[in-house]
Amino acid sequence: MVRGRFITLEGGEGVGKSTQIRALSAALTARGVAVVATREPGGSAGAEAIRALLMEGSDDRWDARSEALLFAAARADHVARTIRPALERGAWVLCDRFVDSSRAYQGGGGGITDADLLALHGFGSLGLLPDHTFLLAVSAREAERRLAVRDAAGADRMGSKPADYQARLAARFAEMAAAEPERWRVIDADAPAEAVTAAIMAELEAWL
Amino acid sequence: MVRGRFITLEGGEGVGKSTQIRALSAALTARGVAVVATREPGGSAGAEAIRALLMEGSDDRWDARSEALLFAAARADHVARTIRPALERGAWVLCDRFVDSSRAYQGGGGGITDADLLALHGFGSLGLLPDHTFLLAVSAREAERRLAVRDAAGADRMGSKPADYQARLAARFAEMAAAEPERWRVIDADAPAEAVTAAIMAELEAWL
Repeated sequence: MVRGRFITLEGGEGVGKSTQIRALSAALTARGVAVVATREPGGSAGAEAIRALLMEGSDDRWDARSEALLFAAARADHVARTIRPALERGAWVLCDRFVDSSRAYQGGGGGITDADLLALHGFGSLGLLPDHTFLLAVSAREAERRLAVRDAAGADRMGSKPADYQARLAARFAEMAAAEPERWRVIDADAPAEAVTAAIMAELEAWL
Repeated sequence: MVRGRFITLEGGEGVGKSTQIRALSAALTARGVAVVATREPGGSAGAEAIRALLMEGSDDRWDARSEALLFAAARADHVARTIRPALERGAWVLCDRFVDSSRAYQGGGGGITDADLLALHGFGSLGLLPDHTFLLAVSAREAERRLAVRDAAGADRMGSKPADYQARLAARFAEMAAAEPERWRVIDADAPAEAVTAAIMAELEAWL
């Protein structure tokens, strides 16, 4: 059995990651690929229980170190129970956020060093990295517009930060993508959803 | 303000740790010491929520790495929210289990290396260690008798392991105590509870 491909989507709030996961899942399934679509935090029974702890409560419920350990614990469970078994049976795994979100949020915003976050990932998930990571990048203006729509609908503990925080996050994601160009592709997510799906599928074509 | 003392009790199931925490708390309070009595996993609002995840469910709910990360997350919250603030205001902290229990259970029994467990503790809790750790050591025969009583009453996910597992744990605790004699004291916990309290209080006398 050929090992499946592990593909992650990254980016700030409201850039269209979950829409793209659904569209890519449908497109790959239509091409005969076995797909497991999942998301973080969560994606396995244990990780979903940890997700509830992370998403509920006030903004200062967890200090930065406890929060980083909880994300690492959820990811370890997700990798052990969902991602690795799927890859081993040959399925492609499409994941909405993975370790790079910890590096952007707990690292860039939360004050934990990238070395510490990668060490936690090395311990918990044996350092598993995606084969391909797509950064859905939107312009500052588009990001602001989408966040306003989302805030009007009500946001959880993770999705209610001010615009300058979102700008720093976007810069951190761009920095990670630039540092590891063989793994990352930056996708213009100001474009209509169908065009974004097509751009990602074009990149995946080589593996099909 | 003089920093308080941080004292932990360690040992297997049913050796009398919680009984001793209560008795020591009363004895120290009677001597005019401000005492915070606590326990792990738990001891703060966040850590108690993580404790519920660790204690419920089947024996294989968590793999060893996720479990070690959850214990480290709970401990980080406990240290940040309960233990350090108490020590800083001059209180003595009496804690039923701490990082040495992770080293014995997730390390000795669970297959995680001691170096990895200490690295997680270094990250999450900035490596905080107790000033004094008392190992409540019971003979194999007495341990078996107490476990039989406890099992008859029903045990949780952590307290239902076979006797040879308990023997390996006891050996691991003894090994840690021998390796760090300035921090650890081994107390004969086959003795009546009052005698155990007196033996520990005699050790603490120097600080009173």
